[in-house]
Amino acid sequence: MPYITSANIACGFHAGDPLTMAQTISLARKHKVAPGAHPGFPDLLGFGRRKMHLTSEEAKNYIIYQMGALQGFAKAANANLQHVKPHGALYNMAAEDESLSKSIVAAVKAFDSNLIVFAPPKSELTKTALSSRLRVACEFFADRAYDADGSLASRKQPKSIINDAGRVVERTLRAIGEGTVLAIDGKTVSLGKIHTVCVHGDTPTAVNLVKKLNEALVKANVKVEPVHNFL
Amino acid sequence: MPYITSANIACGFHAGDPLTMAQTISLARKHKVAPGAHPGFPDLLGFGRRKMHLTSEEAKNYIIYQMGALQGFAKAANANLQHVKPHGALYNMAAEDESLSKSIVAAVKAFDSNLIVFAPPKSELTKTALSSRLRVACEFFADRAYDADGSLASRKQPKSIINDAGRVVERTLRAIGEGTVLAIDGKTVSLGKIHTVCVHGDTPTAVNLVKKLNEALVKANVKVEPVHNFL
Amino acid sequence: MPYITSANIACGFHAGDPLTMAQTISLARKHKVAPGAHPGFPDLLGFGRRKMHLTSEEAKNYIIYQMGALQGFAKAANANLQHVKPHGALYNMAAEDESLSKSIVAAVKAFDSNLIVFAPPKSELTKTALSSRLRVACEFFADRAYDADGSLASRKQPKSIINDAGRVVERTLRAIGEGTVLAIDGKTVSLGKIHTVCVHGDTPTAVNLVKKLNEALVKANVKVEPVHNFL
Amino acid sequence: MPYITSANIACGFHAGDPLTMAQTISLARKHKVAPGAHPGFPDLLGFGRRKMHLTSEEAKNYIIYQMGALQGFAKAANANLQHVKPHGALYNMAAEDESLSKSIVAAVKAFDSNLIVFAPPKSELTKTALSSRLRVACEFFADRAYDADGSLASRKQPKSIINDAGRVVERTLRAIGEGTVLAIDGKTVSLGKIHTVCVHGDTPTAVNLVKKLNEALVKANVKVEPVHNFL
Repeated sequence: MPYITSANIACGFHAGDPLTMAQTISLARKHKVAPGAHPGFPDLLGFGRRKMHLTSEEAKNYIIYQMGALQGFAKAANANLQHVKPHGALYNMAAEDESLSKSIVAAVKAFDSNLIVFAPPKSELTKTALSSRLRVACEFFADRAYDADGSLASRKQPKSIINDAGRVVERTLRAIGEGTVLAIDGKTVSLGKIHTVCVHGDTPTAVNLVKKLNEALVKANVKVEPVHNFL
Repeated sequence: MPYITSANIACGFHAGDPLTMAQTISLARKHKVAPGAHPGFPDLLGFGRRKMHLTSEEAKNYIIYQMGALQGFAKAANANLQHVKPHGALYNMAAEDESLSKSIVAAVKAFDSNLIVFAPPKSELTKTALSSRLRVACEFFADRAYDADGSLASRKQPKSIINDAGRVVERTLRAIGEGTVLAIDGKTVSLGKIHTVCVHGDTPTAVNLVKKLNEALVKANVKVEPVHNFL
Repeated sequence: MPYITSANIACGFHAGDPLTMAQTISLARKHKVAPGAHPGFPDLLGFGRRKMHLTSEEAKNYIIYQMGALQGFAKAANANLQHVKPHGALYNMAAEDESLSKSIVAAVKAFDSNLIVFAPPKSELTKTALSSRLRVACEFFADRAYDADGSLASRKQPKSIINDAGRVVERTLRAIGEGTVLAIDGKTVSLGKIHTVCVHGDTPTAVNLVKKLNEALVKANVKVEPVHNFL
Repeated sequence: MPYITSANIACGFHAGDPLTMAQTISLARKHKVAPGAHPGFPDLLGFGRRKMHLTSEEAKNYIIYQMGALQGFAKAANANLQHVKPHGALYNMAAEDESLSKSIVAAVKAFDSNLIVFAPPKSELTKTALSSRLRVACEFFADRAYDADGSLASRKQPKSIINDAGRVVERTLRAIGEGTVLAIDGKTVSLGKIHTVCVHGDTPTAVNLVKKLNEALVKANVKVEPVHNFL
């Protein structure tokens, strides 16, 4: 918590439970970290990392349910939700699927149109959210390899998860400074402007990664603050 | 819906799912029925009708989660929640358990102290909620037999569920008019003032019961309206 | 039960629970109906009717788990499982997906290679099971419309579910007699030899359908018996 | 695995999932560790450590379901289940509850009366299982403090979990040698004959504890082997 500015909080569908949600909201508040809903597919067995095919109504209402549940803990702690970031397969599918992106955007607009949507740059989700006048934070994954088309390399691929702090820092500075990333095949991929940098809590060495990343960003004069400050 | 004024909506723990919740909120709005959260134990297999022993923190946060999830659909439909009614074993345990009642009241106060608590008259939950300055609607169960101590007769007991419209009407008029009910053993039980009358959606003949009840109450000049109008 | 010879019993992942499983095994035994496992995706919210993308290991082990659980009740009732029929999206995906079919077949062979696999005629699942020396019962859906390619018309399509007993009987006699079905667009589709006829328990009028179907098959001199008698 | 002789495998109700169950059965087989079913209450949120009140039918069938599911993986791996050990609150409640003990025993007898029941010495479960001619392995908890009445001290109590290898070894040697344990209040409690010693996998330092315990038992000439060898 001391090294991050935004936290994605799972809402019970792919992970998370009421106690953890309450504690995380409280911890975020203490560290002045902006909390966000991290809705996922209803798939505890697969941690929400498996594709599921939902109807538009199902997707929209599953997301409203999860945002609402987290909002309950925010209200109870006098905190405000800053953002929504779909989790796992929901995020990856939405990046390429206009219909699913529309369901997510419809959920956010119906629930609270002040919420910022975290999405991959140049994705369907980014386009759909922007065209519905939602604010979007374009996200770079510091600890994940990219394919040449700008999508995340599959977790099943070797070297798709990056644990080395030096590389994480180097990649992030490049992504923020130049808006590019070196794909897993060595090609340079153009990402565009990056507003938020993600490190997964379940990446081994995650705490060290965010610590080193925070130090490097400060040293490089990158202002490290919650996205609602500048979006 | 046309015959009732308040609806208890299950929130996914013992029953209910995002689609049903969204549809019920929408239906309630259409019929000007006041919606309320109906949180239960996390027990889909047992429909929340089995006792579970939770810590205070667990109980409080499970209830916040469920109220928040339903509130999400209310926000999305521009509706307001009127009340909270614990479900099944949670309701029955809270009637007699001061500590559990305190957890429920703490959840409601943290989440939204305007919500009205539905509770059995003279119960621990009623006492605890009133002493925390929450509004309480004392509830009569029209379709359930009572024991001589004023608690509900167990569903496992024969004749504990009342399907006959005539008896349901007669009992309700007595409860509202005199504040009493005839217990399963024939004794008269004093209930005190009744503000709301419950018919279970899963009681066979439920639709007919609420229709007949509505007609009888109107005929008896009892004003049938959502509890937030007069509490 | 009196009108059927094989029963597919859900095992808790998309529907079903221990009590229902125990009762259904017991009821099947009483009526001399052959019980089979009906494993599905872990998707209670969607009744297993939504596509999910599992790894081979996940699919194989989810199916072993479900067959094992049902086998527990069979053992407790001195009954034997006759068959395995994947449910919903698992069945439909396996019909076209060789890799998923291999996972299902691997599960059955590891668990009990005497179990008969229920599968659509000419499907990947039929091919894979036969080439692994499992017995296959080719299945006709009496209450569902077919597309011109021999697959089931989507439930979301109008007229995809057939409630009319006359049509159900007519279609079944044709499927058994000629090995064909008229697709939703009127074209004749060749199915090949049919060993088992399915009516969904959640189709309205299901009881009437199986009664009428049973009478019509007997009248047409089709022997109505569990598939293990002749496969 | 190298330091233990019996493994209790969660079956999906309070913990465990098909992949973990398959892997654990396979790992146990490799290390010649005897596997057993570890059924619990249907309470993933509470890890099965919260009391639930089930009917006899529910308890019996929940346990059959879980034993069956694990048996599926045992069959697939050509392994045999050695035992059944109820988990958490189910174990603790059965220790004192004759009716619940009867449900557990009824489940085991219906499913496989060769399974050995793990139970606290002098408990209701031990008595009920023995009187139904099931074999019972009386169990000592090496890493948990005892109350003066011979039951486990609540996990919520300070010092109820014992992480120190020296104390774990000392207590175990006393329990096996003398059949006694020093309760949390210093009193000596008579346990009677002990057949199996439990270390919780979620106790910090668990691996070190079982290693040290194994060494100490061998040094003390206690034969360390699966209970089915001598019961």
